[in-house]
Amino acid sequence: MRKLITMQKPGPKLTELSSLGEFGLIERLTKDLKLQNKSTIKGVGDDAAVIQPEPGKQLLVSNDLLIEGIHFDITYMPLKHLGYKAAVVNFSDIAAMNGTPTQIVVGISVSGKYSVEALEEIYSGIKKACEMYHVDFVGGDTTSSVAGLFISITVIGEVDKEKITYRHGALAKDLICVSGDLGAAYMGLLILEREKKAFHANPDIQPELSDYNYLLERQLKPEPRMDIVRLLDEKNIVPSSMIDISDGLASELIHLCKSSETGCRIDEDKIPIDQGTFDKAKEFGIVPTVAALNGGEDYELLFTIRQDDYEKIREIADVSIIGYMTEPNEGLNLITGDNQLVGLQAQGWDALKKRELDI
Amino acid sequence: MRKLITMQKPGPKLTELSSLGEFGLIERLTKDLKLQNKSTIKGVGDDAAVIQPEPGKQLLVSNDLLIEGIHFDITYMPLKHLGYKAAVVNFSDIAAMNGTPTQIVVGISVSGKYSVEALEEIYSGIKKACEMYHVDFVGGDTTSSVAGLFISITVIGEVDKEKITYRHGALAKDLICVSGDLGAAYMGLLILEREKKAFHANPDIQPELSDYNYLLERQLKPEPRMDIVRLLDEKNIVPSSMIDISDGLASELIHLCKSSETGCRIDEDKIPIDQGTFDKAKEFGIVPTVAALNGGEDYELLFTIRQDDYEKIREIADVSIIGYMTEPNEGLNLITGDNQLVGLQAQGWDALKKRELDI
Repeated sequence: MRKLITMQKPGPKLTELSSLGEFGLIERLTKDLKLQNKSTIKGVGDDAAVIQPEPGKQLLVSNDLLIEGIHFDITYMPLKHLGYKAAVVNFSDIAAMNGTPTQIVVGISVSGKYSVEALEEIYSGIKKACEMYHVDFVGGDTTSSVAGLFISITVIGEVDKEKITYRHGALAKDLICVSGDLGAAYMGLLILEREKKAFHANPDIQPELSDYNYLLERQLKPEPRMDIVRLLDEKNIVPSSMIDISDGLASELIHLCKSSETGCRIDEDKIPIDQGTFDKAKEFGIVPTVAALNGGEDYELLFTIRQDDYEKIREIADVSIIGYMTEPNEGLNLITGDNQLVGLQAQGWDALKKRELDI
Repeated sequence: MRKLITMQKPGPKLTELSSLGEFGLIERLTKDLKLQNKSTIKGVGDDAAVIQPEPGKQLLVSNDLLIEGIHFDITYMPLKHLGYKAAVVNFSDIAAMNGTPTQIVVGISVSGKYSVEALEEIYSGIKKACEMYHVDFVGGDTTSSVAGLFISITVIGEVDKEKITYRHGALAKDLICVSGDLGAAYMGLLILEREKKAFHANPDIQPELSDYNYLLERQLKPEPRMDIVRLLDEKNIVPSSMIDISDGLASELIHLCKSSETGCRIDEDKIPIDQGTFDKAKEFGIVPTVAALNGGEDYELLFTIRQDDYEKIREIADVSIIGYMTEPNEGLNLITGDNQLVGLQAQGWDALKKRELDI
């Protein structure tokens, strides 16, 4: 949270973007890129990157935009974290297909208010994520904007043809599984927004955030669940459908059901919620389940498996079984802790921003 | 140029972006997409698109951003043309590697001032380009922005491993070739900017633009030279180096020479310039060669071939040989019409915007 202060009082030695020119800038930003994948034949420096796909693999391609003022607020999002997050949310899309990310191309557009050093911070976060997840940064475009910061990342991944997992493969009776715990990223966001308000009211107050490390990290530095993709592979489980949770459990589960033409039934009591998330939700006057259902940005994996895989999935510690798919005419339902059947509704990110927090 | 008028007085029945919601919007924009390439296994509608590369082919990946106020001005760029241009400038990057574009993913971020119909216009231009060049629109992201319109396109292409053409393969004595003619797109831009000024001075004046069709089309609706890639293939010519001309002949030739570690010598008299471009440049008080060297946005192909391919290249009508590569210590030079040796300098797009038009 020190960043709130740093952002307001930048150091003295910042380099203006216009002082380098397009090619000088690109050279500075990409000079220390290392390639890690043998499928990457040529990275940055030509009209296109060149990839030699491994025989038998299918390629996955996904794109996400992160827009200043819409997806992030640079008053509390450190730029290095922003770069890291921009990359890993794309890796998460590849994980959601049961694949492994291998290359990214990065388009960044910034206004004159950003310095070369600020851009380098963003790039260093992207490079850190690439290093962490063995992804090659192979190209992109860096340009100025009239206002604001725009990041566009396209990720390329690969997957064995037999293991690719779409949203549409679930059948009635398949078990619904989710990795990790849910709702924490949203609590982290609420804390940051509260502290921002406090800071604007009195800039001399030092925010005390160390109690909330887990919640803040879930918001500022999410991790894609590549470990779950690996564990599923080790246990020989190919999910029947899968999606990553960017908009909230409810919204993503509805996507799986729509694509697979199924209904579903999940148990409120089985939705994994961290104790810190639970306590903080209560403090904010939010039903913890609602934070988990609609909070978004957890980047956990939501997937279904055949019942035959039940014993195998239980061996993966960080996966919870939260319910099962049903025939489509049974609808999409949540059984609450006091045994009420409630219809699932997608509120997701947009609605949450408006604080419409009822189920 | 009617667009100048249309943009100022929009019709009455426009749909606000916020009225559809993210998923409704994406559904509306992508509902009529048709897939043309058998390598496209899955287009839009999942966490990632799925591509099955043809055995023996290498994949090419390139990304370009188009930013409102930097790369285009919507007062004179019709939105459908903008979409078309955003797509084809990416196809041109694939052509520059001697490849064929096969898929694109599109990220678009727009502010609330744009209607759903405006977005549909942009998409219809992108789809038109895809249809025209047999490229599949396989995914992307559509989101709101605080201000302005941002388009990020990533294109995937394929190329035979033996035919891939980098920037770095030229040798001294290779012939320098260029397709089509140069400088017209820049003249088109100057005309549009002049008419915009006239329109702002007196909105009742109807601009008379029909005389300039070719120049305007070069600016508003460029075409990637896929036909040249095909002809080179038919003639069994694999260029030793290649790049597409987005920033101007001088800048791109310097790239080829730097990457290939060569010098070069080109003849001013051999630079292909259309008569309309020539006349219009004179009218604007610009040396026509300067428009060709630094004008940019022509999206022609600049490439080098071995001298052995001289007879074969002469069979391609729309290719001019403008000079040859030299040893690096001979420098990068232009021989003017009156036999002066002038050093080549990259001014390109940015400098041109400032009207620094001397060689």
